Amino acid sequence: MHDTLLLFGATGDLARRYLFPSLRHLLRDRLLPADIRVVAVGRTRHDDDGFREWLREALGTGEGSDARALDDLLQRTRYHAVDLSDGQAIARELGQYADRPSVSYLSIPPHLFADTSRGLYAAGLLAPPSRLVLEKPMGHDLESAREINAVLREALDESRIFRIDHYLGKAPVQNLMALRLGNTLLEAVWQHQWIESVDIIVAETGGVEGREDYYARYGALRDMVQNHMLQLLALIAMEPPAALDADTVRDEKRKVLRALRPMPPEQAALDSVRGRYGEGVVEGRAVPGFGHAGDVETFVAVRAWIDNWRWSGVPFRLVTGKRMASRMTEVVVTFRPVSHWLFERPSATRATPNRLRVRLQPEETIELGLMGSLAAPEWSATELRPMSLDLSLSTAPARRIAYERLLIDALKGDQTLFVRDDEIEAAWQWIDSICESWARAGLGTRPYAAGSWGPDDAAPFLPPTVSNHGERD
Amino acid sequence: MHDTLLLFGATGDLARRYLFPSLRHLLRDRLLPADIRVVAVGRTRHDDDGFREWLREALGTGEGSDARALDDLLQRTRYHAVDLSDGQAIARELGQYADRPSVSYLSIPPHLFADTSRGLYAAGLLAPPSRLVLEKPMGHDLESAREINAVLREALDESRIFRIDHYLGKAPVQNLMALRLGNTLLEAVWQHQWIESVDIIVAETGGVEGREDYYARYGALRDMVQNHMLQLLALIAMEPPAALDADTVRDEKRKVLRALRPMPPEQAALDSVRGRYGEGVVEGRAVPGFGHAGDVETFVAVRAWIDNWRWSGVPFRLVTGKRMASRMTEVVVTFRPVSHWLFERPSATRATPNRLRVRLQPEETIELGLMGSLAAPEWSATELRPMSLDLSLSTAPARRIAYERLLIDALKGDQTLFVRDDEIEAAWQWIDSICESWARAGLGTRPYAAGSWGPDDAAPFLPPTVSNHGERD
Repeated sequence: MHDTLLLFGATGDLARRYLFPSLRHLLRDRLLPADIRVVAVGRTRHDDDGFREWLREALGTGEGSDARALDDLLQRTRYHAVDLSDGQAIARELGQYADRPSVSYLSIPPHLFADTSRGLYAAGLLAPPSRLVLEKPMGHDLESAREINAVLREALDESRIFRIDHYLGKAPVQNLMALRLGNTLLEAVWQHQWIESVDIIVAETGGVEGREDYYARYGALRDMVQNHMLQLLALIAMEPPAALDADTVRDEKRKVLRALRPMPPEQAALDSVRGRYGEGVVEGRAVPGFGHAGDVETFVAVRAWIDNWRWSGVPFRLVTGKRMASRMTEVVVTFRPVSHWLFERPSATRATPNRLRVRLQPEETIELGLMGSLAAPEWSATELRPMSLDLSLSTAPARRIAYERLLIDALKGDQTLFVRDDEIEAAWQWIDSICESWARAGLGTRPYAAGSWGPDDAAPFLPPTVSNHGERD
Repeated sequence: MHDTLLLFGATGDLARRYLFPSLRHLLRDRLLPADIRVVAVGRTRHDDDGFREWLREALGTGEGSDARALDDLLQRTRYHAVDLSDGQAIARELGQYADRPSVSYLSIPPHLFADTSRGLYAAGLLAPPSRLVLEKPMGHDLESAREINAVLREALDESRIFRIDHYLGKAPVQNLMALRLGNTLLEAVWQHQWIESVDIIVAETGGVEGREDYYARYGALRDMVQNHMLQLLALIAMEPPAALDADTVRDEKRKVLRALRPMPPEQAALDSVRGRYGEGVVEGRAVPGFGHAGDVETFVAVRAWIDNWRWSGVPFRLVTGKRMASRMTEVVVTFRPVSHWLFERPSATRATPNRLRVRLQPEETIELGLMGSLAAPEWSATELRPMSLDLSLSTAPARRIAYERLLIDALKGDQTLFVRDDEIEAAWQWIDSICESWARAGLGTRPYAAGSWGPDDAAPFLPPTVSNHGERD
């Protein structure tokens, strides 16, 4: 493992809420190299002790092993205030850390990517075998993503670039892969002959407050679908890789992303819905609508089609929105009905189909929905009832922040859970086709009330597990 | 529903332990016809009140609704002491009950079947639409089974004959059918391409004490395999029926039983093991061996092959014995390994395959064994661990005695869970082929210690869930 971690954007939100807490947990559990050193880099003026004071306050001291882990973390952490647009400042302040192989983690605004990577390169911090970790956004369309990739390629090669999509660090996503590839029962059915549809939903209750300007340049499609949701789609839909090494897996993911059918303008209104929240009530609280000028979507529903042998005719419904009725991130794989239904119909007009439900929010669980009979004599022998098998993740000793696994993997040099340049570009290519179709077809946003499930037109896109659309489950 | 139940063998063990308690539960839960009357028939001399007294003591008064249900049952029950070999006595004592359609339940020794059914016929108690329920044994070979069926056929037609196999009334068996036929995930894999083997084990800790003479004429193969275990096999292996009516289901079961490959003598020593328990320790108690003269088996293991398209090459291992290490009745369907194993090997030399485990004893549960990843960063990302999904039957309001459902079905006239004449005969045909092969090959019994898992030679026949054969799981 590399034992120097440079953390750019150290006083930012992500660092405070996820990265430093992850480091603290990993130290507590002795999962980091014994001589790990953390170099925190930010804009704010602090000396080492001032930053440590700030960090202690930000994280909370805690008790017992947590308190000791914090002390350990603070002791290993040095702070530098650096203007990242100034290459010489980077070299002057941080060049000293080029003595050991390092991992530079950029949790910074994307317009600083180019200058920072050039500065790190000049300072020797990207010399092999050092690595670079990046957070989204990776551009806002194919062209800008290509530019970023080109800049990065000048500084270091792809095998040392780690593009984070933190969804890939989540335990249920790991488990989804394990289930899919480690079980005959799923190997046998993981194809269009047995799968009817796949739903991926990321519903947030929060709004855009405070990020209006940033958000207005992206919208829900670019902000959530291009990265997190297409990564989930790729893991679900890729051909089983021949091995689990990073490039074999990512080759398969790229193939799926490239097989996404571009959306033609005449299909835009059929296969997608854009929404924009107005005022409403979310979790019992009245909230204002999204006030920015311009027609950017805060909600999007897209029906994606993968044109290959495995997935022909299977819709992948992608839905994400802000200010939704409840917080919910999940993948639902719905299997086709049995070929011939023998039993009495339950109250609903047709039997509940088998479903694999992978929940990432609000809880991390995996459920397998099957039909069973309770076989009590007072019920008809032939009436089946839906039952749910719970693949509880609670047997894991402690729930982990997704970043913990990703930090470890970056220090180890395992790229499997990181996104490769060509995946990013393939995803953008498809996203661009949708944006273009929207523009050509003049598909604008529809209003929806904050606290709802999006515009009415989006109802057919919602997963069967969205409960207040009773007609669908 | 018919509303007269004649219960022959009313003072016997089965009636006392299962049939009357079932009736009491069904009365308590108002699942019987409002004007149900119970006619208890036995050899013991009792008047109505004397029998009621005996029954109250045998069942225990209970409390609340159970006590009220017992009073209700006693009040509805009349008793007749009848010599069943005397047709005129049957007509004289019981002819009065021919006024309403009835169900006659024969819980009596098999040598009385013929006389009793003739007597009931003469008394008008088998006139349409009255029904006859029979308990095993249905003969001891194909010829004697045919004789019994011929005698029954003289008295009434097959559509009114209900041969009980109480395993078919058990909730997990019902659920096995529901799972198999109501779920796409199992429809897809229920065939030799995906299933590696099927184990059916009925292990008892009890011995033969008190039934030596009866048992010595049967042995484990005839006593357990011919009926219960082949019925389980038939439900697992039959083609999915086009409908759930009794004859459609039983046509499919018969087809499977007829597709069982007869055992040639040269295969006897490879595909079967016979055992006979000696003294040993069972559940902490020293017990004597089976002392009867003659070479009858108290343990049998058979590898059965079904020669059809669905099951070609899939072994069905049937194991049953007395005085085994623990009490355990279960069906284990073991799926083939995934086509290509991507992950690290767990501690065992190969990954645990997917398994469906249907347990009838000591608990009624269904478990689905899958592989998952716990995805904690301290473990390898690529090491999978076995996990078990529990299809708990505990959501049923109360666990039911298997006979409850079967009594209700007999009163209603639903034959689906009862065994048809041709099934019985097909099962005997196969059993006879084994007995013949044993005789020709001179395959005798091997000794095993009471409290073990049978003779050493039987180890390869034991299901992977038998825990003290560590090398198999």
